[in-house]
Amino acid sequence: MELAAHAPLLSALVTIIALIFYFYTVIRVGGARGQYKIAAPAITGHPVFERTYRVQMNTLEHLVIFVPSLWIATTYFARVGWLAPALGVIWIVGRILYMQGYIADPNKRGTGFLIASLAELALMIIAVIGIVMAWSASA
Amino acid sequence: MELAAHAPLLSALVTIIALIFYFYTVIRVGGARGQYKIAAPAITGHPVFERTYRVQMNTLEHLVIFVPSLWIATTYFARVGWLAPALGVIWIVGRILYMQGYIADPNKRGTGFLIASLAELALMIIAVIGIVMAWSASA
Amino acid sequence: MELAAHAPLLSALVTIIALIFYFYTVIRVGGARGQYKIAAPAITGHPVFERTYRVQMNTLEHLVIFVPSLWIATTYFARVGWLAPALGVIWIVGRILYMQGYIADPNKRGTGFLIASLAELALMIIAVIGIVMAWSASA
Repeated sequence: MELAAHAPLLSALVTIIALIFYFYTVIRVGGARGQYKIAAPAITGHPVFERTYRVQMNTLEHLVIFVPSLWIATTYFARVGWLAPALGVIWIVGRILYMQGYIADPNKRGTGFLIASLAELALMIIAVIGIVMAWSASA
Repeated sequence: MELAAHAPLLSALVTIIALIFYFYTVIRVGGARGQYKIAAPAITGHPVFERTYRVQMNTLEHLVIFVPSLWIATTYFARVGWLAPALGVIWIVGRILYMQGYIADPNKRGTGFLIASLAELALMIIAVIGIVMAWSASA
Repeated sequence: MELAAHAPLLSALVTIIALIFYFYTVIRVGGARGQYKIAAPAITGHPVFERTYRVQMNTLEHLVIFVPSLWIATTYFARVGWLAPALGVIWIVGRILYMQGYIADPNKRGTGFLIASLAELALMIIAVIGIVMAWSASA
């Protein structure tokens, strides 16, 4: 079976890996809460805690774009089936670099953010192309 | 081909437009961060920055209801196929009005919020009706 | 018709119930804003308001893991079709207990959080198992 025919399976796998990574950023906030003694519901009190929290929030803020874009691209941009899940892998790599950069130093969050954002934009673009192509084909 | 038969394509398009709008609210926070000199990870410091941030957060908070409701309604409420994506368009219009109102003045956020919330509720209601109808049909 | 064959319908219903519950946590923040006189865009000012806000945020933070995991598990872990929606019901129960516990006392948020997190993890695990099984079957 060709790789392209596996596109939905690959996207399902990429989605779960993205969710597990995001789950990890959530757990890390819990850990930082203990380490820097920030009792809930406070979300401020120590720079490293605040950065860890921002990493989780920012991952959340982009995850909600990523997952629907990935699936619309996977569903409608079927010509190059591996492209959507491949962009999904790039997104995950970018988000990991963003996390590592930001927690080390807020000024180091740019590279990972850029990589993930470009993958996100590319997914939205191929999703739109796929929708237009599907529309034309059915018109 | 009838418009109703295009329902999933229309909902895919509405989803991508909603994601692009949400992406725009994210970018606007970045812009306000620069304009009002609020260095990350701070999320307070200037009223307009705080409102811009709240617009993004509130859009996020409702986007996670909107996308699954839209798709469950699109999948199961198939009798009037254009209704779910049409409610999706209303949701987007409401969210744009909410953004413009809130950034101008927190007291002006009501109208857009109401429009978007009613569209959201209507999507949840037709989703439930669609599920019940599909259940009855298969029982 | 067997219950397992209804799995997508059950998961659709569970999703809508989870969204309605989350919508309720959003409304509760609005109510607490009025009750404790916290004018938007502030998100601090009274402990009970802050807890109510954290409940909504935490529900949001986990909803974005829950919905995609539920659907990937429902789609690919088809052997025991009722398992994914059943875990979804447990997740909702856990989130309700978490809300009630947290608003009463931040130290009482643990039990509900644990129940929901275990259901979430179980959904991610059966999703991965389902993907691997589908991959093996198609290879």
